[in-house]
Amino acid sequence: MTRRVALLAHEGFPDRAKTAVGVLRYADSEVVAVVDREIAEADPDARVADYVSDVPDAPIVGRVADAPTFDALVIGVAPIGGGFDESWRPDVRTALETGADVVSGLHYFLANDEEFVRLADEHGGTLRDVRQPPDDLTVAEGIAHDLEAEIVLTVGTDCSTGKMTTTRELYEAARDRGIDAAFVPTGQTGIIIENWGIPIDRTVSDFTAGAVERMCRERADHDYLFVEGQGSIVHPAYSAVTTGILHGAMPDSLVLCHEAGREAVHGYEEFEIPNPGYVAELYESLAEPVAPTSVAAGALNTANLATAEAEAALDRYRSQLGAPVADPIRDGPEQLLEAVL
Amino acid sequence: MTRRVALLAHEGFPDRAKTAVGVLRYADSEVVAVVDREIAEADPDARVADYVSDVPDAPIVGRVADAPTFDALVIGVAPIGGGFDESWRPDVRTALETGADVVSGLHYFLANDEEFVRLADEHGGTLRDVRQPPDDLTVAEGIAHDLEAEIVLTVGTDCSTGKMTTTRELYEAARDRGIDAAFVPTGQTGIIIENWGIPIDRTVSDFTAGAVERMCRERADHDYLFVEGQGSIVHPAYSAVTTGILHGAMPDSLVLCHEAGREAVHGYEEFEIPNPGYVAELYESLAEPVAPTSVAAGALNTANLATAEAEAALDRYRSQLGAPVADPIRDGPEQLLEAVL
Repeated sequence: MTRRVALLAHEGFPDRAKTAVGVLRYADSEVVAVVDREIAEADPDARVADYVSDVPDAPIVGRVADAPTFDALVIGVAPIGGGFDESWRPDVRTALETGADVVSGLHYFLANDEEFVRLADEHGGTLRDVRQPPDDLTVAEGIAHDLEAEIVLTVGTDCSTGKMTTTRELYEAARDRGIDAAFVPTGQTGIIIENWGIPIDRTVSDFTAGAVERMCRERADHDYLFVEGQGSIVHPAYSAVTTGILHGAMPDSLVLCHEAGREAVHGYEEFEIPNPGYVAELYESLAEPVAPTSVAAGALNTANLATAEAEAALDRYRSQLGAPVADPIRDGPEQLLEAVL
Repeated sequence: MTRRVALLAHEGFPDRAKTAVGVLRYADSEVVAVVDREIAEADPDARVADYVSDVPDAPIVGRVADAPTFDALVIGVAPIGGGFDESWRPDVRTALETGADVVSGLHYFLANDEEFVRLADEHGGTLRDVRQPPDDLTVAEGIAHDLEAEIVLTVGTDCSTGKMTTTRELYEAARDRGIDAAFVPTGQTGIIIENWGIPIDRTVSDFTAGAVERMCRERADHDYLFVEGQGSIVHPAYSAVTTGILHGAMPDSLVLCHEAGREAVHGYEEFEIPNPGYVAELYESLAEPVAPTSVAAGALNTANLATAEAEAALDRYRSQLGAPVADPIRDGPEQLLEAVL
């Protein structure tokens, strides 16, 4: 995606606009504007740099019509349930009328929307629903461990613990060192950034491992594959997807992602997150009969902590895992990369 | 399904016609004929009793046109890949022309076949594809352990170790004792037998646990739910489905199903099946953070062994699990039922 994009993030930027922030941080695109009417109404001169550091700056505008020229509009925010918010329709319409593409990771498929299909046809744009898996998936053959590439998988103690970020940081740091590495995305943000990949949570359940295996095969000519994990094996709803990725990717090493201070499963507060050391052992035990691996490092999200607290949390996490740990954003990914190379 | 059925099982009866045998053994239907041209050509007087004991007898005929009157034709055999074998078309056509329904657990959906749709319309029959999940599934809420029903889940060391049979035997034995029990099927044979259920291996991967949870809720007014497991957590391709069922059903107890003498994963011979005791502990460890449970009993399939060998295999299995074990077909399900009540 070496092109100009606008990021739709109404009422969500930056904290509830994971995809928008991911694209700003990692995609090979020029972001011409973030579209968030709440921010733009409060401050017509608002800019990305006021909200997120270490990413290219861009204006924040109230509607797509106010954005500089772009080639694609990316839906950068997801309401609970993944539906399409009808209040976004004028913005998507405007984008399509300029001939731009629209890229979406929503459960609601733009390609099933009559008006959008018609506008895309009329003006030459493309509707790209990244959450639609290919229709020729099949079961895993159990061969990922035979691939020559070294496979590194991020796993988590919960959802939203930084698996996509950690994977991408490791991948970029490896490339900066001149390593022939590939990024294997499994969720909508990673797929939008990479402009390739299969949304693992939307495959037929029997093909979960097979879909990951297929992606690893497609990138097997690289020396290192950094595979983005999903969910957690101790999650009451999403553990099936996590297990399929673990057994389908057959990783050589794991990086366990955790958010400092999080004690309960996000959105399922009744469920305690066990000690991360226990979770690490559980990943290893579950992998062992299929393809043995071990947790080589731990990534800790300390974004909500002051420096001294973050240091203490990292020390605790290091002793829980008995492995090198770092916050890949605060500390950079170098220590984690060293541990998996 | 208190009605007359014919079972299509060309070249597969009985060993490669799991669904046909399941319907014969467990369904509340009168089987008027098994259709297997290979058997019927070799012996025009062949009967079910020559091949399977302890099920109601019926003639084996070479084509559907030779079967006594029936209300539904059940596709009772599945080729590798789950496709529709075109050599069956005349039989399905004949069934539809008599006004009968056709029930299928194939991946190939009869409802997408123009000729079958037309014939069903013309003659008033119904095409029932049990492998099509409902389209309103969603993620699990993590509430199955709050249901008042006691939930018993069968799990396995591999696919095809007797999970459906064990679940059904436990359910029927419980009913025979006057216990208010329900059977929760998760695969095509069980769904055809029960005339209800969701094919868990065909759901969207994110909804695997949610689909099982939904079935448990729908049957929660019973005292005991016997939930049919799928695959194995040590299977390189199907472990995602297994994990989703384990965490979605949140069972009070597990029955571990194993086939005596099987040492490698069926169809994935490179992968050794670990000691069943290790597999039992792995199920317990994986369940523990979400909803603790334990392996209360072991079901051993000893169909391929002589009596003395079977006894030795049961002794070995008992010591591996440290729990009561039995072959639910050879010994009956009573000991297993005692262990989970």
